[in-house]
Amino acid sequence: MISAAYPGDVAQLRLALAQVNPTVGDLEGNADLIVQWSRRAAEAGAHLVAFPEMMLTGYPVEDLALRASFVEASRRTLERTARRLADEGLGALPVVTGYLDRLGVSRPGQPAGAPLNALAWLHAGRVAARSAKHHLPNYGVFDEFRYFVRGDRLPVVRVAGVDVATAICEDLWQDGGPVGVTRTAGAGLLLVINGSPYERSKDDVRLELVARRAREAGCTLAYVNMIGGQDELVFDGDSMIVGPDGGLLARAEPFAERLLVADLTLPAATTPPRSRRVDAADGTAITIEHTVISADPVPAYEPAPPPIAEPLDDLAEVYRALVLGVRDYVRKNGFRSVICGLSGGIDSALVATIAADAIGPENVHVVLLPSRYSSDHSVADAEELVRRQGLQARTVPINDMVEAFERQLKPTGLAEENLQARVRAVVWMALSNQEDHLVLTTGNKSELATGYSTLYGDSAGGFGPIKDVMKTMVWALARWRNAQAEAAGRTPPIPQRIIDKPPSAELRPGQLDTDSLPDYEVLDALLHDYVERDLGRDALIAAGHDAALVERVIRLVDRAEYKRRQYPPGPKITPKNFGRDRRLPITNRWREPSTG
Amino acid sequence: MISAAYPGDVAQLRLALAQVNPTVGDLEGNADLIVQWSRRAAEAGAHLVAFPEMMLTGYPVEDLALRASFVEASRRTLERTARRLADEGLGALPVVTGYLDRLGVSRPGQPAGAPLNALAWLHAGRVAARSAKHHLPNYGVFDEFRYFVRGDRLPVVRVAGVDVATAICEDLWQDGGPVGVTRTAGAGLLLVINGSPYERSKDDVRLELVARRAREAGCTLAYVNMIGGQDELVFDGDSMIVGPDGGLLARAEPFAERLLVADLTLPAATTPPRSRRVDAADGTAITIEHTVISADPVPAYEPAPPPIAEPLDDLAEVYRALVLGVRDYVRKNGFRSVICGLSGGIDSALVATIAADAIGPENVHVVLLPSRYSSDHSVADAEELVRRQGLQARTVPINDMVEAFERQLKPTGLAEENLQARVRAVVWMALSNQEDHLVLTTGNKSELATGYSTLYGDSAGGFGPIKDVMKTMVWALARWRNAQAEAAGRTPPIPQRIIDKPPSAELRPGQLDTDSLPDYEVLDALLHDYVERDLGRDALIAAGHDAALVERVIRLVDRAEYKRRQYPPGPKITPKNFGRDRRLPITNRWREPSTG
Repeated sequence: MISAAYPGDVAQLRLALAQVNPTVGDLEGNADLIVQWSRRAAEAGAHLVAFPEMMLTGYPVEDLALRASFVEASRRTLERTARRLADEGLGALPVVTGYLDRLGVSRPGQPAGAPLNALAWLHAGRVAARSAKHHLPNYGVFDEFRYFVRGDRLPVVRVAGVDVATAICEDLWQDGGPVGVTRTAGAGLLLVINGSPYERSKDDVRLELVARRAREAGCTLAYVNMIGGQDELVFDGDSMIVGPDGGLLARAEPFAERLLVADLTLPAATTPPRSRRVDAADGTAITIEHTVISADPVPAYEPAPPPIAEPLDDLAEVYRALVLGVRDYVRKNGFRSVICGLSGGIDSALVATIAADAIGPENVHVVLLPSRYSSDHSVADAEELVRRQGLQARTVPINDMVEAFERQLKPTGLAEENLQARVRAVVWMALSNQEDHLVLTTGNKSELATGYSTLYGDSAGGFGPIKDVMKTMVWALARWRNAQAEAAGRTPPIPQRIIDKPPSAELRPGQLDTDSLPDYEVLDALLHDYVERDLGRDALIAAGHDAALVERVIRLVDRAEYKRRQYPPGPKITPKNFGRDRRLPITNRWREPSTG
Repeated sequence: MISAAYPGDVAQLRLALAQVNPTVGDLEGNADLIVQWSRRAAEAGAHLVAFPEMMLTGYPVEDLALRASFVEASRRTLERTARRLADEGLGALPVVTGYLDRLGVSRPGQPAGAPLNALAWLHAGRVAARSAKHHLPNYGVFDEFRYFVRGDRLPVVRVAGVDVATAICEDLWQDGGPVGVTRTAGAGLLLVINGSPYERSKDDVRLELVARRAREAGCTLAYVNMIGGQDELVFDGDSMIVGPDGGLLARAEPFAERLLVADLTLPAATTPPRSRRVDAADGTAITIEHTVISADPVPAYEPAPPPIAEPLDDLAEVYRALVLGVRDYVRKNGFRSVICGLSGGIDSALVATIAADAIGPENVHVVLLPSRYSSDHSVADAEELVRRQGLQARTVPINDMVEAFERQLKPTGLAEENLQARVRAVVWMALSNQEDHLVLTTGNKSELATGYSTLYGDSAGGFGPIKDVMKTMVWALARWRNAQAEAAGRTPPIPQRIIDKPPSAELRPGQLDTDSLPDYEVLDALLHDYVERDLGRDALIAAGHDAALVERVIRLVDRAEYKRRQYPPGPKITPKNFGRDRRLPITNRWREPSTG
């Protein structure tokens, strides 16, 4: 359709996508990022620069969206940022950014003042166009019906002679709405701003989706996403541009702040701009709102080939997500250092390694807390890991403290095991209070699922780096990280003995995880189907899992909900994490029936 | 309108509202309740009995609604319950109940199989009519857009010659939709089934709402609500019936299972039943679906005057909510007993008293954990409370254990104070593990708001009975409970010295809460405006709060979010509790600006 409407006319446009890392609530800091990266874009000769969804406020802001003072601050900061860009000589560069706004007038069933997940075009010191997200995601980790009312506009802004349509994140994922009317609007470029959290293999899904929507819209599609950690979420960036045929034109390296600059050749707009209301094919109507910033194409120039980053393999992707998640939780919460227990086992070894990669080994404090049941090799292996990485280590034997409790309480069995775990937690919490470290919790997803952890013991801490990582992947990541070091000619950070030894909590003599749990290969496959795929008992057995094991594991998982509810946040890497994704009642007598 | 349409024709109907206590996930148990209470209704001569929203599954089921096996179990259990009622001789009594269903056919934008918050009419061994909630609440504690798609029907069922329309909970609170077309449908009775959680003064709001909707619908309105605790929520019942003029006809005692039976005189249906689709005044259309169970009025009988329970005063209401919340959390999670620390202060004294009222003093285990800073009167006061109530008490001095840590860690200041709190928690957790008690946490809302608690210390436990109760109300409840006992000629359960002494955590010599916090009257008023009303800094100062205190308290509240995230659930009694109601990011650099 575009080629029919604008036969032969093309215009060049240098587009910059600012894949940056905003911080929730830091409006001034985020505005600074907009100015800094707009300057870089201007220096790179860009004709247009775009920032992610809710760039000005960070994302997701949760109930801050309901606080009037916060909404007003976002609106004021947006206007101020537009003026500041102009004051700093950047007024000629159109800037697209996400921010938090509110509904100016009331619509049927929606009060005036209701929050909007909004998008603005900033130009020449003022806001040239505004719109709001139409499709509001309310599944998985998203709760946007709680906060926002839907937008009903597709802004189309003529920049350098090209009609650029803009939309927000979920508008791309759902049929109908603003993205659905892009072709009708005759846009030459569709620009979508995003706050899309990482999960495994999402990059493939995204590329497919972006390519499909580009073909549907009949135009080039640019996708800009934030990076960074925000509580449980890690944003991976993965900003990209695809042509009208769905072919990939440019892609940014994920998990890093990047300015993706691409020279695009696009259909030139030759018809007069015309705003109008059209059917959105989802039961609503969308107003196509036309604005002109610069009607004339830029003089022809020699385009540079845009960068296309290689996709990362699965383990590299997960590892970078965990490192970024830890780094940002530490940094954005005002910590400089972390502390965790180091048992000589694989979980705490991987957590310490991730932390060292995130904030430097000199800021990673580890505590060896040997008890009467700790084996010699545990201590030796932990010490070897400390030596290899240069961590800040100390040893605090816990026998005296455990015995002080035992004299009074005479605990046995589980109570005795939990006591050791809790005494350890009291030690690292005391060191955290004394020295102001963030405590990292070392539990993995298999443990969290089955409840094989001690509340206020090994589960105690402010952040859980491997909370969404199943045990089998803990090993895989450790091997991957060692292989990376070896490939670079460095000593592997994790001693091989830690990877090879059979897993044990060492809470009683000779204890092994396999005493009470099946092999982790078997367990993790079952947990994947029950927790992440939400299959019921019959479906699990039909999928090939052992019937007795299915019943036992379902019970373990269901019973441990109260423990998970008090677990700290940790970076989500799977389609369904414990926390924002999977929300079950604690009081819950549902037992999967034994017969279909 | 009704009087014009049915001049002079009236029919009698004995309506029973079953204000019962379902358990989430216990489909069989909940079905048993339906059968038992239907039998009682039949024995009382009722012509119709109604149960609350989602009666069959309990409410809210959260992500269980997304599990196919659970949805199918609900559907099967509904059919089975209809057959069972008939098998047990109750098939002639129409039974209205809530359950979980799924969409049979796909609608635009809504997949087939999407869950429904549904309502069924059971009669003669089968399901006579079905509908689903139209207005889905997605604010406060509710997330129903996450789970359900909206219904688009108003069932009108002719029973004993009266046309009875049925709707679900939020349908009553929002304009438009099924309740809005009740008048058009010409119903003689509107029956609304509810899962409406308690909060302070909600009974007044409800009565006003029900009266207004009755006037709008031009007919009698019956409101049935569940009772019971479900994690953070407490359902208070407060089932009621109002006439077409909004006058209260019947009301059940709250917080107790009750069958509210009322003889109603209603307009007799005289026009032929007619199903049709009508505009719902909210942008949607509703199908009025007419079904006939019994077309003829019952023979005239002498009506009995229905009961109208006196509303409870504010403190009585809150106290009953807390007792029911504790009882149901204990019972529904399979515990028989609780344990908590008893310091001699007001918070733990009130928690122990609530627990004793909930499950009997013989099941309430308390631990006195004196440290070197505990005053003599603290121990004496705690012992006196134990004696008055007959609690299960023991004393575990913590000095030896604290010293075992101190020898290794040499903590000072906050670290030393937190160490004592954490050693206490290790003790009660060990006793809980040994003896299988649920641990109760004794923190109040003022403390939780400001972060004046120790993570894994005094905040450790499975349930927090006064988590949503501010400190000033803690005292008020203690005085109220004592006055109740005195009025009944019994010894007040809480020694007056515990109520009168200045509050202290006794974590260092002579420590008082007022050393670092303002008077609780001042603090709680500010917390109310910041936490519950969500006022920003400027609005708080404009409301008359001291500017310096506002800034300090905002910082305290904002910084303590990470602690609250790991706090156990506790009964919600205010319009905004910490937990399901107030959802803020932990990583949050937003600081209320100092100038408007």
